[in-house]
Amino acid sequence: MTEPTTTEKVAAANEAALTLANESGEARDVALHAVADALMANEERILAANETDVAAAKELLAAGDYTQALVDRLKLSPGKIASIAEMVRSVAEQDDPLGRTLSARRLDDDLELYELSVPLGVIGAVFESRPDALVQIAALSIKSGNAVILKGGSEASHSNRVLYEVIREAASELSDGWAQLIEAREDVDRLLSMDDSIDLLMPRGSSAFVRYIQTNTSIPVLGHTEGVCHVYVDEAADLGTAEAVALDAKVQYPAVCNAVETLLIHEAAAEAFLPSMAARYRDAGVELRGDERTRAIVEVDAATDADWTTEYGDLVLAVKVVDSLDDAVAHVNENGSKHTDSILTENADRAARFMRGVDSASVFHNASTRFADGYRFGLGAEVGISTGKTHARGPVGLEGLTTYKYYLEGDGQTVGTYAGEDATPFTHEELDGEWRPGHRSTE
Amino acid sequence: MTEPTTTEKVAAANEAALTLANESGEARDVALHAVADALMANEERILAANETDVAAAKELLAAGDYTQALVDRLKLSPGKIASIAEMVRSVAEQDDPLGRTLSARRLDDDLELYELSVPLGVIGAVFESRPDALVQIAALSIKSGNAVILKGGSEASHSNRVLYEVIREAASELSDGWAQLIEAREDVDRLLSMDDSIDLLMPRGSSAFVRYIQTNTSIPVLGHTEGVCHVYVDEAADLGTAEAVALDAKVQYPAVCNAVETLLIHEAAAEAFLPSMAARYRDAGVELRGDERTRAIVEVDAATDADWTTEYGDLVLAVKVVDSLDDAVAHVNENGSKHTDSILTENADRAARFMRGVDSASVFHNASTRFADGYRFGLGAEVGISTGKTHARGPVGLEGLTTYKYYLEGDGQTVGTYAGEDATPFTHEELDGEWRPGHRSTE
Repeated sequence: MTEPTTTEKVAAANEAALTLANESGEARDVALHAVADALMANEERILAANETDVAAAKELLAAGDYTQALVDRLKLSPGKIASIAEMVRSVAEQDDPLGRTLSARRLDDDLELYELSVPLGVIGAVFESRPDALVQIAALSIKSGNAVILKGGSEASHSNRVLYEVIREAASELSDGWAQLIEAREDVDRLLSMDDSIDLLMPRGSSAFVRYIQTNTSIPVLGHTEGVCHVYVDEAADLGTAEAVALDAKVQYPAVCNAVETLLIHEAAAEAFLPSMAARYRDAGVELRGDERTRAIVEVDAATDADWTTEYGDLVLAVKVVDSLDDAVAHVNENGSKHTDSILTENADRAARFMRGVDSASVFHNASTRFADGYRFGLGAEVGISTGKTHARGPVGLEGLTTYKYYLEGDGQTVGTYAGEDATPFTHEELDGEWRPGHRSTE
Repeated sequence: MTEPTTTEKVAAANEAALTLANESGEARDVALHAVADALMANEERILAANETDVAAAKELLAAGDYTQALVDRLKLSPGKIASIAEMVRSVAEQDDPLGRTLSARRLDDDLELYELSVPLGVIGAVFESRPDALVQIAALSIKSGNAVILKGGSEASHSNRVLYEVIREAASELSDGWAQLIEAREDVDRLLSMDDSIDLLMPRGSSAFVRYIQTNTSIPVLGHTEGVCHVYVDEAADLGTAEAVALDAKVQYPAVCNAVETLLIHEAAAEAFLPSMAARYRDAGVELRGDERTRAIVEVDAATDADWTTEYGDLVLAVKVVDSLDDAVAHVNENGSKHTDSILTENADRAARFMRGVDSASVFHNASTRFADGYRFGLGAEVGISTGKTHARGPVGLEGLTTYKYYLEGDGQTVGTYAGEDATPFTHEELDGEWRPGHRSTE
């Protein structure tokens, strides 16, 4: 039997999506628990495949073509597999994102419109290295009733293949074909061109990788390239609070996209704030790069223009003194990545000006940028963080993998009745009920 | 003074968008009424420019390069200008789509998250012929707080230029530069490549035109190429009801995208339904094209494969007899355009099966497909109908031109407190309040 082509796999996913969309929430949760069980039961098989990938990566490491961090990310262990299985169970515990009545309206007697949440259809997931990404994306797809095309990095190909087989076998009660594995690099460009049959792309990887996907497809993309986040210490800030938040935003986990990369300080606060703040950053191992006015107050290296737009993802921070709140807003809008930006101030009106003025997905007042996260926001399972503005913005929960569909229940109405000179008027009355099969379900 | 380049115009729109986003609802409505007044006051100037366009179109008509319908669509009159001004006032009457609190959640004491509706930013509108499209898009942009790049068809260039000037002068209280006119055809491709500075494209025109836009940009597109809508008469249909709805769906306004193009009939209903239905269609001037089983019952031309995927936009209808409800669903999913499809049946469970199974934006039970419309749905001003699945689907109101932004109000919280062994738990309690400047606004 020859391996199906990418086109055939995507067609099969489209076919499967129509059935999967109508599986009950219970059936999808049963499948998720079956996947978790199967991951545990197939530990040896998964670890054996993973060893092959890790061995190849170590050869590249020895040849200087790979970093230890990449090898670590690739490597699975019994403990890691258990935590991946646990993650799958936690996805099952989430509220069902499907079949919810988002709005309901009576257009006229016996003519009722319902807006229901439904799956998008087929998701294309393209990700690098970590094999746990495959499991997480598959689990989110099951929960949200979407078929999924999985394309992992070649460095994890053996791990991915086995994980895919385990998942597909375990979830075989769902419509066959709901998950499809793509392995050749050249198939990515094929996927990017399939705007008729893929409803959403979820790229995960480096900024350059996500950027490449975003600019080479007309399929909607859920993701973010980078997080150049700001903390702005206003003239009306409580400096103790500002110090604690600015420290947390940089050092609590510097590698992630919601860590702060540039600290802005109102000139009226700079002299009082910077010396003590700089000392705390120095104690925490943070390298500071300042503009001229910063360097007139504390001894740090000079920042270049590139520093204002760089996501360090590390213990490095650019620091700038600004003339005013408006200048802070302008700096953020010009140099930021529309991700997350926070103002420290005790003045509510100034906070509101900053939050309204900054064109980012998340704008915070007296809180660390690190709160920008689906779990902390209370969205449940995090699908990703989006810096795009349409469909889903900022931290995205399972809702980001759904869309809606209008159900209209009538009893034979024609538009002719509502048009022309003797037109019957619409009532357009909001309803509280949920859609149930059959007409006049809210009565 | 030289005309700014397209890049400069788009940059100016981005700059203006930041200010426009924070204009009050009242200021935006005042601007809309000023635009309506200015259209009436400048009637002569507008008609003079329009005459130039119409004269050129008539020359093309005489040379056989243009149709009378296109000339009619281009032509403005005092009555038409009055109705355009009225449309602008009706947009002003809509509820403000901005600043609404879409959700609110207490993450912990004094740490409150608000999801607020905000404008997308910069919309690119590319449209053909009708000069009223320019005014309508500009009005929707003002109401939704978006800056807009307007590119009309060259056949309406004089009308568009004057309408643009009148609108921009009238709305000069808003941030300057919120509307930009682009006139050269080659600038369209430039716009399509500006995914960093245009947030949404709204194409209006032929299917081929919209399709070209969709496949040549990575900017999100709100629109639809075609409407291949279905009416399915089930075995459990009330045949009188079915006849009335199927007739309305075709003849009430055949040129629009929500008119039916293919009629499907369950084989058990075909003999009883088709003769009388065909007679009524014939009386209404509808040309029928049937499959073999249809032609065994009524005398109509043979349908070819192309008929099942054609949007006639005219008094033509394809007719097919199907074996079962599942076959009807499969036919719609295979040949339709995910727009609007309706089942006629007295059996609620069968209706639910059809509505769940059909992957279209609008699925109807015992109602004409012609109800798929923003006004009839009660969405207020219609921005367009989308057959895409992300961001906005089906008939789209002003909400489709908005996105959301997360506001987090804290009093100095750090993520470190909520991480690690002694982590404070989040409360994640839903709130009813609306965001107001300042902290603890819901108390």
